[in-house]
Amino acid sequence: MREFKELLPYSEALERMLSNPLETGVENVGLENAVGRVLSDDVSSPIDSPPFDRAAMDGYAIRAEDSFGYREGHPVELRVIDDITAGQVSSKAVSPGAAVGIMTGAKMPEGADCVIMQEFTSRSGDTLKLMSKIPPSKNVSVRGEDTHLGDKVLMSGTRLSPRHLAYVRSLGVDAVTVKARPKVSIIVTGDEFNLTKKSEEGKIFESNSLMLSKLLDAIGCDVREMSIVPDDEGKIQDAIASAAGKSDLLLITGGSSFGKKDMAHKLFDKFVFHGVTIKPGRPFGFTLRGGMPCFIMSGYPVAAYVQFCLFVIPYIESAMGTTILKRAFLPIGVERPSALGRMEFVRCRIVAGNVEPIRSSGSSMISSLAMADGYILIDELTEGINPGEMIEFTYFL
Amino acid sequence: MREFKELLPYSEALERMLSNPLETGVENVGLENAVGRVLSDDVSSPIDSPPFDRAAMDGYAIRAEDSFGYREGHPVELRVIDDITAGQVSSKAVSPGAAVGIMTGAKMPEGADCVIMQEFTSRSGDTLKLMSKIPPSKNVSVRGEDTHLGDKVLMSGTRLSPRHLAYVRSLGVDAVTVKARPKVSIIVTGDEFNLTKKSEEGKIFESNSLMLSKLLDAIGCDVREMSIVPDDEGKIQDAIASAAGKSDLLLITGGSSFGKKDMAHKLFDKFVFHGVTIKPGRPFGFTLRGGMPCFIMSGYPVAAYVQFCLFVIPYIESAMGTTILKRAFLPIGVERPSALGRMEFVRCRIVAGNVEPIRSSGSSMISSLAMADGYILIDELTEGINPGEMIEFTYFL
Repeated sequence: MREFKELLPYSEALERMLSNPLETGVENVGLENAVGRVLSDDVSSPIDSPPFDRAAMDGYAIRAEDSFGYREGHPVELRVIDDITAGQVSSKAVSPGAAVGIMTGAKMPEGADCVIMQEFTSRSGDTLKLMSKIPPSKNVSVRGEDTHLGDKVLMSGTRLSPRHLAYVRSLGVDAVTVKARPKVSIIVTGDEFNLTKKSEEGKIFESNSLMLSKLLDAIGCDVREMSIVPDDEGKIQDAIASAAGKSDLLLITGGSSFGKKDMAHKLFDKFVFHGVTIKPGRPFGFTLRGGMPCFIMSGYPVAAYVQFCLFVIPYIESAMGTTILKRAFLPIGVERPSALGRMEFVRCRIVAGNVEPIRSSGSSMISSLAMADGYILIDELTEGINPGEMIEFTYFL
Repeated sequence: MREFKELLPYSEALERMLSNPLETGVENVGLENAVGRVLSDDVSSPIDSPPFDRAAMDGYAIRAEDSFGYREGHPVELRVIDDITAGQVSSKAVSPGAAVGIMTGAKMPEGADCVIMQEFTSRSGDTLKLMSKIPPSKNVSVRGEDTHLGDKVLMSGTRLSPRHLAYVRSLGVDAVTVKARPKVSIIVTGDEFNLTKKSEEGKIFESNSLMLSKLLDAIGCDVREMSIVPDDEGKIQDAIASAAGKSDLLLITGGSSFGKKDMAHKLFDKFVFHGVTIKPGRPFGFTLRGGMPCFIMSGYPVAAYVQFCLFVIPYIESAMGTTILKRAFLPIGVERPSALGRMEFVRCRIVAGNVEPIRSSGSSMISSLAMADGYILIDELTEGINPGEMIEFTYFL
């Protein structure tokens, strides 16, 4: 295409983009508001967990020694001096011959070194008969068994799920330091949009603003400003200026029309790159505007979606030091040819455990995005993939 | 365990649970608020997409016939009668010998049946030279090529992602009918919780309320009430009564202590089942209270998490008619023995494409949840899994 003096291979484009990294700060958030946030620091445990030796079974806390005299038909007799449930602490120490009835989770009374399960005892009043020998430590969760004070329990870069939050909450942590949400603005450019409810000849419904804003939400960004402007240099300049003060990153769609009107080079001094050997999504550009990184994206929703996966997500992942998309190596179900010289982004479904490319894959085929479960990449040097070959599959958000 | 007269196999427990389904309504939501919601009806397209024949390339809209006279060294000459970009409509018809300059996405002018790429033309003023033959329909996206009016474009049960929303927005859809969010309340019971900031002997930090509420959020439920109450029948009764009026479903943790005090049977007339042959998570119970389904869950966070995956998620999936968790068949990296007679929920990591069970897997080991990427299930009749065997892996939320 004429507007691109030079098409860059994807890997090189990625490298150039990432050498202009996004800068974001950090903030402290309560665990209630931390789902999906990314840790900026390791979290260390402020306590041992469990914080004390505790019963791992319902039964009786005894001294193991006391059970050693047991022989078949000759139960050992002990005296029950207390009964405690989880959360209670016995004020009595277990001396030889004594037992404390104990429920799972309760703190081990002093002197006791094991818990004999109820099933191996019989009780009548305060008299307990042991029907088994039991070794020391049996059925006791010892202090710090799961986690020691000072252990690194969550690593910087962890994207927090409910299970991570539950873990650190169980250690007494209430807040964590996370990466600030990158502030992103979106400018959708084009004269082709029908922004009314009525049908307008030659116009189409605009969907990029909704798609990009919801994708940005999903990857933990803070969408600051979203504007839909016609292909008019002045109006685009105004929208950029308005976004600039409040954004860490700017996404502009409709970059293809920039080519025709040579608008891109009026709007931006210099591109880090413009045009990448990928299909779809070739007319992607990266530039800086007063230090603010700007992504010049396609107006076609499919191409913009591909560019989001291939550029925006890795850029945010790198800024946050995390991984957002899930990947797995899976077999491909059918042959899939691909042209040399460009990397192909192939929308695929998972069918019976196999990756199956979607047939209709033109970049105007937005239906294909809705049908697919994710994508594979076929690189510039590969002519295609054969059935049964294992390939890295990336799940869509 | 004494409290369970009968342990049910997991598959049977699931069946009994699902034969008491959750009832939820439907509601209409704007696309802006529809991410993560589940369609209750199929969505049909109100238009053809594209809505008109349009240029798929930048170039000239011509009559293909006009190019047929081309021979090497003998370009065909046409007259450019108009130039249009996307969103513009030409008022001129393309008659024999005429051409309209056209940009990708613009509506095809009347009379033209193909677009010749700029690369195969040379233009001087209004005179255009064609350097190639071109067949009819070339570089034209025909009306309805992606989607026809009336096509079912999204199926009931779809959990809406940004790409689904973009697709239907591009078709002019603004709102969709989705399943109402199930209203769920949580009651955490137990005397063992330290609810202060100070250390309290024999007590632990409560994490189930945070974990369950955030898990419920993540699967699209509406958390209505969350209470932490001591192991006191009256207080639990009060909490249940308070939740009952406003909830479709109730989760109660601390079910194990119910066993000891025989509280469960005072609180609930009758269990659909109580106790399942799974590890961890055995003391799970299901009952109805005035028609409201109640899940009796473990107090141990790991067991409660497992029960959430094995019962709450399938229950909500069934109510919504959707699939929430992602699964893939992957090879297991190491041998993993398992006892017969119970289904084991094994927390695993993915290491270099292989599933690797986490070693420390006691149900008090909440660290293991944070370390794992997901789980495998080893059923009651399997003694273990051998290295290299393919197994269904389920990704955690």
